[in-house]
Amino acid sequence: MNRIITLLTDYGLEDPFAGSMKGAILSINPEVTIVDITHGIKPFAIMEGALALKAAYPYFPARTIHVVVVDPGVGTNRRGLLVTTEKYLFVGPDNGVFSFILDDQESCTCYELTATHYFRPEISPTFHGRDIFGPVAAWLTKGLSYSHFGSEIVDPVRFSIPRPQAGNNIIQGQVMHIDRFGNLVTTITAPDVRRVFGEEGRSVCRLGETGDGPVPMCEYYAEVPAGEPCAIIGSSGFLEVAVNQGRATHRFGAKIGHLVTITKA
Amino acid sequence: MNRIITLLTDYGLEDPFAGSMKGAILSINPEVTIVDITHGIKPFAIMEGALALKAAYPYFPARTIHVVVVDPGVGTNRRGLLVTTEKYLFVGPDNGVFSFILDDQESCTCYELTATHYFRPEISPTFHGRDIFGPVAAWLTKGLSYSHFGSEIVDPVRFSIPRPQAGNNIIQGQVMHIDRFGNLVTTITAPDVRRVFGEEGRSVCRLGETGDGPVPMCEYYAEVPAGEPCAIIGSSGFLEVAVNQGRATHRFGAKIGHLVTITKA
Amino acid sequence: MNRIITLLTDYGLEDPFAGSMKGAILSINPEVTIVDITHGIKPFAIMEGALALKAAYPYFPARTIHVVVVDPGVGTNRRGLLVTTEKYLFVGPDNGVFSFILDDQESCTCYELTATHYFRPEISPTFHGRDIFGPVAAWLTKGLSYSHFGSEIVDPVRFSIPRPQAGNNIIQGQVMHIDRFGNLVTTITAPDVRRVFGEEGRSVCRLGETGDGPVPMCEYYAEVPAGEPCAIIGSSGFLEVAVNQGRATHRFGAKIGHLVTITKA
Repeated sequence: MNRIITLLTDYGLEDPFAGSMKGAILSINPEVTIVDITHGIKPFAIMEGALALKAAYPYFPARTIHVVVVDPGVGTNRRGLLVTTEKYLFVGPDNGVFSFILDDQESCTCYELTATHYFRPEISPTFHGRDIFGPVAAWLTKGLSYSHFGSEIVDPVRFSIPRPQAGNNIIQGQVMHIDRFGNLVTTITAPDVRRVFGEEGRSVCRLGETGDGPVPMCEYYAEVPAGEPCAIIGSSGFLEVAVNQGRATHRFGAKIGHLVTITKA
Repeated sequence: MNRIITLLTDYGLEDPFAGSMKGAILSINPEVTIVDITHGIKPFAIMEGALALKAAYPYFPARTIHVVVVDPGVGTNRRGLLVTTEKYLFVGPDNGVFSFILDDQESCTCYELTATHYFRPEISPTFHGRDIFGPVAAWLTKGLSYSHFGSEIVDPVRFSIPRPQAGNNIIQGQVMHIDRFGNLVTTITAPDVRRVFGEEGRSVCRLGETGDGPVPMCEYYAEVPAGEPCAIIGSSGFLEVAVNQGRATHRFGAKIGHLVTITKA
Repeated sequence: MNRIITLLTDYGLEDPFAGSMKGAILSINPEVTIVDITHGIKPFAIMEGALALKAAYPYFPARTIHVVVVDPGVGTNRRGLLVTTEKYLFVGPDNGVFSFILDDQESCTCYELTATHYFRPEISPTFHGRDIFGPVAAWLTKGLSYSHFGSEIVDPVRFSIPRPQAGNNIIQGQVMHIDRFGNLVTTITAPDVRRVFGEEGRSVCRLGETGDGPVPMCEYYAEVPAGEPCAIIGSSGFLEVAVNQGRATHRFGAKIGHLVTITKA
């Protein structure tokens, strides 16, 4: 039985949006365990939501239902989706927020949510988290077969995953997220670095058009003195630029989209 | 059996206040499911707390216990309340925070919380959420009769619910809340609009003394282009002024109390 | 059986860090009740984390497992700890964050976490909350004996608890925390005040080198008019300076470390 539902939204925690959504879920199945992944995605930031989902979903038990609502098109005719993989279920709007899932997983099946008897009887055109996606997730915990929720579709919306460019002893990527600690999470992955520089190869990281740095490649933050920068494979598998006990975003004035280059040391 | 307790406070999430309150509840009944509606009410903002409660409470299962603590008078002789309706229980200070509940519900019964053996043995004069309201809610999950907690009272504190003024082809209301998305939630409801303009009547919305707008009445945000304003019946039943994928509060420089006028289109 | 795990971290709520940690816990034991004490500790602020823990832990049921992750040394050779007291278990880095616990409790036993088979198979050098401390807490709910997790140690890292200086009719302490309401939480406790001024003794509070005030000693905030300052024994037992319905931090321009003096009235 699926009994865990996670929530990942841009609703924030100051308004009662996340709370109302939880009420709607518990009204259908009060035995559900609800876990917040985050409600702090910037409003309408689909890419940020997709990245947060990618970072968190693999750590949950099999059969967890992940509900994602970052939904600038709420109320329009954009479709609602159920995405099923071998291990998990995902529910949310069909706007690209599941792009990393569709990319990560060998076999995904997608269903368009059309069975309105699994929605709340009255649907606000501005709050599908409470009135559609939460209720569908709650009904999914009851073991209904997926096809009860709508027909299979083969063309879910996907954005192209940002990838770095790799050359001879060089990788060029970008900052794609800045976390709470001011760390710059890039598009470059550990396998990218290994592929270009080998297992033992020494490399350094430079930032921006002007090539600020060089920033040494490290294993953990405190390998450099407090206040000094380092480049690390972060906890979700992407290379990130950090400042030990400081904020890389301040140090390098870097924003999302900022150029990050890895070269031979 | 009541087994769900919701929390709605101005405690914020940076201090351990909400966590301590949860510990006090679980110490009395570890089987309770605790759901945060929000802890982000602005300090001492009773009206904001009352509105958040109104938006969220109807979405929870029957017999849910809603605990609300926005409590500038903590430690004074203001009373503690248990409010019971046909479907729910409410616990918190007697300062008006339940005004919308008392207004919405045909039959409410109120009890003054005086049975100190359902409080914690030591009561901080600054933290009744942890020491009184949380514990009372936890004891209520055990199925005790309401009169065990204190005597019935008939004069709970109520503020007068702000209502718009309606005339011939005109409604004048106010901004009463600004949400995370910068939407301006007004005192005007869907029935107000229907009553003045009819089911099919066309109307527009204007803001402030200068009548900024006209803002078109829409069903969902994306009915207007990104960056353009619209007026919508929001998810808790009040008319709100929004900017599609933007912030109405920036666009109109509107604050709580700002005039909102609906006229014939 | 231990079934409640609390989390207290500096992970914030905007990134999926706390959510991933919860997934890792539920993957080991899906029956656990997880309670957030706070994730809003300022990044790397060990003292602030230690204080939040002290304020919250005693309100939880016996056998609760408190996981604390404020961990500037993540990835270095700083040890991981399990601290056991008569009533509770504590799990986190050995960096002083348990100093108040070690100080409060007559009998603590500490174990260094070395049994890697209770960690996740792959350990990120930047995220021990998800990969080590959360999983260890989850395994502890299964009733394994403590010594399975590592060997007893007798030298956990402790910082010296800040204490006020008491003299003849004078106590000098410091601001050690500023809470959400702008209240100045000091190092001075209720017993400190009683010891110097007696049960009935009248005293006043002054702030800073210039002795701003006098601020009257009160029982609850509303003993003074709105906007006026008062000094109160706060809900975690420390004297705090507040402004009724206002912010003491604005009124006195006080920061952490600011001098606070109690003298005879």
